[in-house]
Amino acid sequence: MNWNVYLSGEIHTDWRQQIIDGAKAQDLPIVFTSAVTNHEASDAAGDLLGAEANSFWRDHKSSKINAIRTKTLIEKCDVAVIRFGDRYKQWNAAFDAGYCSATGKPYITLHEEDIVHPLKEVDASAMAWATKPAQVVEMLKYIVTAQ
Amino acid sequence: MNWNVYLSGEIHTDWRQQIIDGAKAQDLPIVFTSAVTNHEASDAAGDLLGAEANSFWRDHKSSKINAIRTKTLIEKCDVAVIRFGDRYKQWNAAFDAGYCSATGKPYITLHEEDIVHPLKEVDASAMAWATKPAQVVEMLKYIVTAQ
Amino acid sequence: MNWNVYLSGEIHTDWRQQIIDGAKAQDLPIVFTSAVTNHEASDAAGDLLGAEANSFWRDHKSSKINAIRTKTLIEKCDVAVIRFGDRYKQWNAAFDAGYCSATGKPYITLHEEDIVHPLKEVDASAMAWATKPAQVVEMLKYIVTAQ
Amino acid sequence: MNWNVYLSGEIHTDWRQQIIDGAKAQDLPIVFTSAVTNHEASDAAGDLLGAEANSFWRDHKSSKINAIRTKTLIEKCDVAVIRFGDRYKQWNAAFDAGYCSATGKPYITLHEEDIVHPLKEVDASAMAWATKPAQVVEMLKYIVTAQ
Amino acid sequence: MNWNVYLSGEIHTDWRQQIIDGAKAQDLPIVFTSAVTNHEASDAAGDLLGAEANSFWRDHKSSKINAIRTKTLIEKCDVAVIRFGDRYKQWNAAFDAGYCSATGKPYITLHEEDIVHPLKEVDASAMAWATKPAQVVEMLKYIVTAQ
Amino acid sequence: MNWNVYLSGEIHTDWRQQIIDGAKAQDLPIVFTSAVTNHEASDAAGDLLGAEANSFWRDHKSSKINAIRTKTLIEKCDVAVIRFGDRYKQWNAAFDAGYCSATGKPYITLHEEDIVHPLKEVDASAMAWATKPAQVVEMLKYIVTAQ
Amino acid sequence: MNWNVYLSGEIHTDWRQQIIDGAKAQDLPIVFTSAVTNHEASDAAGDLLGAEANSFWRDHKSSKINAIRTKTLIEKCDVAVIRFGDRYKQWNAAFDAGYCSATGKPYITLHEEDIVHPLKEVDASAMAWATKPAQVVEMLKYIVTAQ
Amino acid sequence: MNWNVYLSGEIHTDWRQQIIDGAKAQDLPIVFTSAVTNHEASDAAGDLLGAEANSFWRDHKSSKINAIRTKTLIEKCDVAVIRFGDRYKQWNAAFDAGYCSATGKPYITLHEEDIVHPLKEVDASAMAWATKPAQVVEMLKYIVTAQ
Repeated sequence: MNWNVYLSGEIHTDWRQQIIDGAKAQDLPIVFTSAVTNHEASDAAGDLLGAEANSFWRDHKSSKINAIRTKTLIEKCDVAVIRFGDRYKQWNAAFDAGYCSATGKPYITLHEEDIVHPLKEVDASAMAWATKPAQVVEMLKYIVTAQ
Repeated sequence: MNWNVYLSGEIHTDWRQQIIDGAKAQDLPIVFTSAVTNHEASDAAGDLLGAEANSFWRDHKSSKINAIRTKTLIEKCDVAVIRFGDRYKQWNAAFDAGYCSATGKPYITLHEEDIVHPLKEVDASAMAWATKPAQVVEMLKYIVTAQ
Repeated sequence: MNWNVYLSGEIHTDWRQQIIDGAKAQDLPIVFTSAVTNHEASDAAGDLLGAEANSFWRDHKSSKINAIRTKTLIEKCDVAVIRFGDRYKQWNAAFDAGYCSATGKPYITLHEEDIVHPLKEVDASAMAWATKPAQVVEMLKYIVTAQ
Repeated sequence: MNWNVYLSGEIHTDWRQQIIDGAKAQDLPIVFTSAVTNHEASDAAGDLLGAEANSFWRDHKSSKINAIRTKTLIEKCDVAVIRFGDRYKQWNAAFDAGYCSATGKPYITLHEEDIVHPLKEVDASAMAWATKPAQVVEMLKYIVTAQ
Repeated sequence: MNWNVYLSGEIHTDWRQQIIDGAKAQDLPIVFTSAVTNHEASDAAGDLLGAEANSFWRDHKSSKINAIRTKTLIEKCDVAVIRFGDRYKQWNAAFDAGYCSATGKPYITLHEEDIVHPLKEVDASAMAWATKPAQVVEMLKYIVTAQ
Repeated sequence: MNWNVYLSGEIHTDWRQQIIDGAKAQDLPIVFTSAVTNHEASDAAGDLLGAEANSFWRDHKSSKINAIRTKTLIEKCDVAVIRFGDRYKQWNAAFDAGYCSATGKPYITLHEEDIVHPLKEVDASAMAWATKPAQVVEMLKYIVTAQ
Repeated sequence: MNWNVYLSGEIHTDWRQQIIDGAKAQDLPIVFTSAVTNHEASDAAGDLLGAEANSFWRDHKSSKINAIRTKTLIEKCDVAVIRFGDRYKQWNAAFDAGYCSATGKPYITLHEEDIVHPLKEVDASAMAWATKPAQVVEMLKYIVTAQ
Repeated sequence: MNWNVYLSGEIHTDWRQQIIDGAKAQDLPIVFTSAVTNHEASDAAGDLLGAEANSFWRDHKSSKINAIRTKTLIEKCDVAVIRFGDRYKQWNAAFDAGYCSATGKPYITLHEEDIVHPLKEVDASAMAWATKPAQVVEMLKYIVTAQ
C-alpha cells in the first residue's frame, strides 16, 4: 500500500525537500503532495481571470483557486505534516490543522519549542509534534513499514 | 427561533462585549457562546489533574480540556464570528476557522485591513469580513430579523 | 410535534403568504421560514461592510451574507417548498433544490405546467410537484396531521 | 495523480470540447466526464422502459435515468465546471451547483458578465468564475501541475 | 428525557394501539409516531395534485408524499418498531428496516415465529425480535426507565 | 471508467445471468457483484462456527456472515438492480432497497406489473423500474456509454 | 444551556453517585445519563423475549437491548466520562471509548495510575484523564461555567 | 476484487500468521493489515521525538503515533478480525471494536468460550464470533469467493 502525505505550511525553508529526500533515501512507499509553494505564483493564481483593483478581492480570487487544490489534496491524504516556522503569520497552516481535525484526518506538527505555547490548541489535536524533518521521516518510516 | 453565535479569537480587547451589548440593545434573539476568555484560568485548566514539570504537557492537558468546551459549542452554533487582532499568534482562531470550514459551519471574520493578506485563506472560506463589532451586530440583525 | 417548512424561490408574487395563511386557517403546527424576500434589502445586504465599485463583488458580498441565513434555515427545515414563476432566471431556486437533494432534505416544487420540461431534473429529485399554493397547504395538512 | 473534472451545463455550444482540447494540448493529467450531451438521446432516455402519454412522466423517467449517471459522476469528480449560456432556463446547471455546494465539491462557473446578477447565489458558493473556456484550462493547469 | 418511537409496518391489526396503550398505562415518557395508517387515505395521498390514468404513477405520487412524512419521522425517532403480519407483501416494512439499518437507527422487529426464515436478513440487523406487543412495551419500559 | 453494479433479490431464476451476458455481449465496462446465490450455501453460512439447535439463531448467524459480504459490496457499487419475482417473501430485496435509499445509492427495480402496488414505496425511491433484464442492459448501456 | 454527560463503565462502586452529587452540590446545569447499572437486571434484559438454553445467545439478546439504550444516550451526550476500576474485564467501557472516538464525541477517562499502560490507546483518544470523581466534577464545572 | 482485512488484538500468539497462511494456502484475494505487533517497538514508537520522564506521557506519545497507522488501516479495511486471548487487559482490542461499530465497519471476534460473558457488548455488535483461526479463514473464503 502506498501512503499519501500532505505537507502544509512554511514555504521559505527547505523542510519539504528534506522530508521528501529522506523518504526517498529509505525507499518509503509514500506520495507527497502540497499546496503551490511558489509564493508569487500562488498570490497571482487568480490574475488570469482578470485584474482586481482592490487587493482584498485579488487575494480572495487567488486563495479560492488555491483552495481547489489544497482541499482536494488534504482530503486525499492519509496524514498531513503541518510546519510552523519563525516568520510570518502562518494562519493558513493553522487553518489546515483545524480542517484536518474536523474531518478526522491525522496530522503531525513540525515546529521549534519556542512556539509551543501559542500552538497549544493546534498541538492538542495533533497526533505528534516533531522539531526536525528527520524525525518526521523516522516517524513515517515506522508508521508505514514497521511490522 | 433563537440563533446561536460562537465568538472565537482575541481575548484582550472587549469586542465580544460590544457585540453582545449591541445585540441586546436591539433585542436580537441570539445566544452567544465562547471559549473561556480568562487567560490564566484557560492556561491552568488542566492543573486540577496534577502538576506537570514539562510545559508542553501542561499546555496539552489544558488545551484538551478547553477543547471539550470549544468543540461542543462550535458544533452547536449556527454562525461563528472569528476575531483576529494586532497582537499574538492567534493560531487557535485560524484553527477554529478551519474547523468551521470543514464542517460547513458559516463564519464571519472580524479584523483590520492591514492583515488582509496573511488572512487570505481564512477569509476565502468566510461568509463575510467585517472590521468593526458594530458591523457584525448589523449583519446579525439582518440575518436574524429581516423579512 | 411542530414541522418546519422552508419556502424558497420567487419573491414577486404572494405565494408564500397564501401558504402561510392557508396553514394558519387550518391551524397546522407548522413554522415557516424563508430567505429575506425584500429584493432591495437582499441585494444590499453587504453594503454595510463598505461599498464596492465592482458589481460582481457587491453581489458576492450580499449573497454570502444571505447564504448564512438561507443555508442555516434550509438545514433546520423538515421540508422545503420551491417555487418557480414565469419571470427571471431563478437559478437560486434551482440551486436550493440541488442543495436539498444532496443533503436528503425532501422538497416540493410549485410551478405551472408550461415549465415542466426545463425543470425536469429539479422535479426528478422532488417528492411532489404542485401547481397551486392551496395544493401545497393540503399536502402539508395531510403530511402533518393525517392518522 | 489524475484529476477528475465534471463538465456541467450548456449543451448547444462547444465549450466542453474547447476545454478538453486545451487540456490535451497541454498534456494535463485530467479525465473529463459529463452528462449525456445529445439532447434527443437524453430526453428519450426513459423510452426504452415504455412510452408515456403524459409528458411530465416521460421527462420524469428520463431525468431519473440520467441522474444515475450524473450523480455518480459528480460524486466521483474532484472539481466541477458549470457553464451557463445565454439561452434556455438551465436550471439543471444551477441544480448541479447546489448539489456540489452541499457536498463540499469545489466548482468553477463559466459564464458571461451579463448574467452575473441572476447567478449571484451560484457564484457565491463557487471557487472561481471564468468567462472563457481557455481561462478554465489555464486554471486547471495551475491547480493540477504548479509546484 | 422523552423517547421517540416510530411504529412501522402492518396496518390492519391493532398492534400500534396495544403498544401505545401499554406505554400510557405505565406512564412511559414516550412519543409514538407512524406513517398514515388509513389505507385509502394513504393510497390517495397524491390525488389532490391531479388524477393519474396510469396506476403506477398514481402510486408513485402518493408514495412520495407519504415518504415526506415517514422519512422525516424515522429520522427523528430514537427507536423503530417494525411489525410483519401474516398477510400482504409488506415490502415497505422491510424497506424501513433497511433504511434504519443504513442510518444506524436501532429497530425492534415484531412478528410470529413462522416467518423467522424469510425475515432472517431483517432480523439480523435488528436489536431485538418480539412476538407480542406486550413484550415491546416491557422492553421499552426497561430501556427508558430502568436504573 | 469501470462501473460497479450490484444485483440484489430473486435467486431462483436466471435474471442475473441474462444481465451479465447482455452486458458482456455489448462489451460494457461493468463489474457485477451479488450476494451468494446458492440457497443452501447461504443458509448454511454460519454452520462452520458450530451447530445451532434453535433455527432462529442458525438463521441469525448465517445472515450476519452473509451481510459482511452484501453490505460491503452494496457500499462499493455505483448502482444496484433489485429484482422482485412472483414467489417467496423477498424481504431481503426490499431491505436492500431501503439500505440503498438511505445511503443515496441509486437503484433500479426489476419486476412485473402485477406487483406495482405492494412495491410502491420501494419504487418511489428507485431511479427506474424495468420489467425485463434486457431493458436493464439497455439502460446500463446508455448510462455507461452514451455521449 | 444544559450539558448532557454520559457516565460509562464500572458499576460496582459509587463513582457515578459521587459525580452526580458533586455536580448537584455546585448546581451545575448538567443532565447525567448512564447504562442500566443494576447488574442482574442488565444481564436479564432479554429474558422477557423468551428463555435461551445457550448462554451466548442469552447474553447476545440482553446486550442488544441494552445497546438500544446506551447507543442512543451516547449519541445524545456532549461528553462521556468512562471509568475503569480494578476488577473485571471492562471491555464494554473500552468499547464505548472507541465508539466515542470514532464519532468525535469527547470523553474523559477516570482510573488509577496503575492501569495507565494497558489503557494507553484509550487514553490517547481521551480529552482528559482523572483519577478521582471530584476531579471530574471540577473539570465539568470549569467546562460548563467558566467565563 | 481484492478484500482488505484488518487483524486487531492479541500479539503474543501466532493467530495472525495462521489466518494469513490459511488464506494464502487457498489463494484468497485478501490483503491483511495490522498494527505494529512488535511490543517493544510499539511502546517505543514515540521515543524518537525525545525521552519522557513521565510514563503516562511516554505511553501517550507512542499510542498516538501508533494510532496514525491503526486508524488509517481500519478505515481502509473491508472487515476487521478482533482477537481476545486469555492474558492482559486488551482494552485496545475492545476500543477497536467500538470504533468499527460506530463507523459501520463489520468485524468478527475471535476468542474462547470462557470469555463470552465479559465480551457480550463487543460480540453484540460483531457480525460473527469464531473460536479458531481456521474458522476465520473458512468464513473469509466463503465471503470472498462463494457464488
